[in-house]
Amino acid sequence: MQRRTVLAGLGIAGLAGTVGTMAARPADAIPLPLPLKNLLSISSLSHVNDPALTPIFPGDPEFVLETATTVAADGYYLQYVRQGEHTGSHWGAPAHFQEGGLTADRLTVDDLFLPAVRIDIREQAAADADYAITIDDLSAFERANGPIPAEGAVIAWTGWAERWGTPAYVNADADGVTHQPGFSVEAVRWLIDRGVLGERGALGIDTFGPDLGIDDTYEVSTILFDRRRISLENLTNLQSLPPTGGCVLVGSTINRNGSGAPGAIYAITAAVGR
Amino acid sequence: MQRRTVLAGLGIAGLAGTVGTMAARPADAIPLPLPLKNLLSISSLSHVNDPALTPIFPGDPEFVLETATTVAADGYYLQYVRQGEHTGSHWGAPAHFQEGGLTADRLTVDDLFLPAVRIDIREQAAADADYAITIDDLSAFERANGPIPAEGAVIAWTGWAERWGTPAYVNADADGVTHQPGFSVEAVRWLIDRGVLGERGALGIDTFGPDLGIDDTYEVSTILFDRRRISLENLTNLQSLPPTGGCVLVGSTINRNGSGAPGAIYAITAAVGR
Repeated sequence: MQRRTVLAGLGIAGLAGTVGTMAARPADAIPLPLPLKNLLSISSLSHVNDPALTPIFPGDPEFVLETATTVAADGYYLQYVRQGEHTGSHWGAPAHFQEGGLTADRLTVDDLFLPAVRIDIREQAAADADYAITIDDLSAFERANGPIPAEGAVIAWTGWAERWGTPAYVNADADGVTHQPGFSVEAVRWLIDRGVLGERGALGIDTFGPDLGIDDTYEVSTILFDRRRISLENLTNLQSLPPTGGCVLVGSTINRNGSGAPGAIYAITAAVGR
Repeated sequence: MQRRTVLAGLGIAGLAGTVGTMAARPADAIPLPLPLKNLLSISSLSHVNDPALTPIFPGDPEFVLETATTVAADGYYLQYVRQGEHTGSHWGAPAHFQEGGLTADRLTVDDLFLPAVRIDIREQAAADADYAITIDDLSAFERANGPIPAEGAVIAWTGWAERWGTPAYVNADADGVTHQPGFSVEAVRWLIDRGVLGERGALGIDTFGPDLGIDDTYEVSTILFDRRRISLENLTNLQSLPPTGGCVLVGSTINRNGSGAPGAIYAITAAVGR
């Protein structure tokens, strides 16, 4: 019955006439009017993982790609990879910050596939590398675009991806303090209070993470990582994610007891309407 | 104009009446009748990557997960990962077998998002671990399910995933020869001749790879890896991929000069019709 309601709501031409016979014909056997591949537009929000360019967060383990075998010598080519679970474009599981929190292998695809909004703070971040997204920024976004979906991903577009591979990405001052934009603690609490960050949900950003560079207490990460909530970090190509209506899907190895992993973080949008 | 034809073909109720005004209203501003997330069903076809269970292909480099930092000692938890690019559930780029072939960083999402069919040979493989999919198997599949999409992924469901973590996965005989089912060379040539494996396309399987275990010349891999064609290996959960109408999306780190990588290989299907 729920299935029938969904189909009626969809109202795809050609389905309407068949609703009466649906008891005899499973919903998932009704042909789509176009191949599924043509209905979706998918782009990657991840950088290529390259030891020559990938900035390593201070204290993170060494990242090495090494040729292990070659076609000429061995018949096939592959590299040996050594990297921390939070190298390059990657996601973080609750256990990354929460003692006893869920590890990657205890989450499901439902936790990694989320409706997404993109908050554009490139102008503010260009003017102030310590800029933190405010409640006002989020309210203004909702006035312009409608409510941010519950249990969604809130992606901050700071413009930092253009600094990838240069010292301006880490952006350390003379005292070694990193300066990168992020989310204010108040804004994140507001997202939690409204259920955007609920049982599920994510913060995402095109910097090392959602915390300001100058916050060495990681307070935003500390309140984000709870229940089944995740973080998406070192993103790029955010022009391909629309402000609303898209989804993010995290594609990565799921390690036993994983704290997250490098991977392809995909933006999925409808190719024909939103 | 093409956009308009696509939308007319889609025929989503409520859109039909707006087609006449589409010149004034961009197609991507027309609301979907349901949130995108609710239109898609996504499942992972990848095993958890676990040194205690993941079978290592003979000759592949060591796979180690090591705790690098902990919340108690460092404020955050992460593991250091050392593995070959073809460990666990993973994909292979043309350069894996083709001298001068494209590496992972020279492919695009279009090469990693493919319409997929699933060929069920569990019965044959249970009876004969050296069973190779024949042209007849593919023809019979097409008679029952319609043509295999051009530039698609052909996924063999052998049942081998149930052997994961046991010696029966490698299935070596007394002489050390591996016995696993796969594709016959003739069947792969047939797929190439018909454009299923064209500029793009993939073979996928729930074993170490598309070659029979007893073929130490890797002839199937040798003809598969060409142009932008890829391989999907060590899959699982293939009951979640329908025989036709679904897509596969490879989610993994893209390494510089990568030969492929471990990752989440997703099955994407329409939640409301196919």
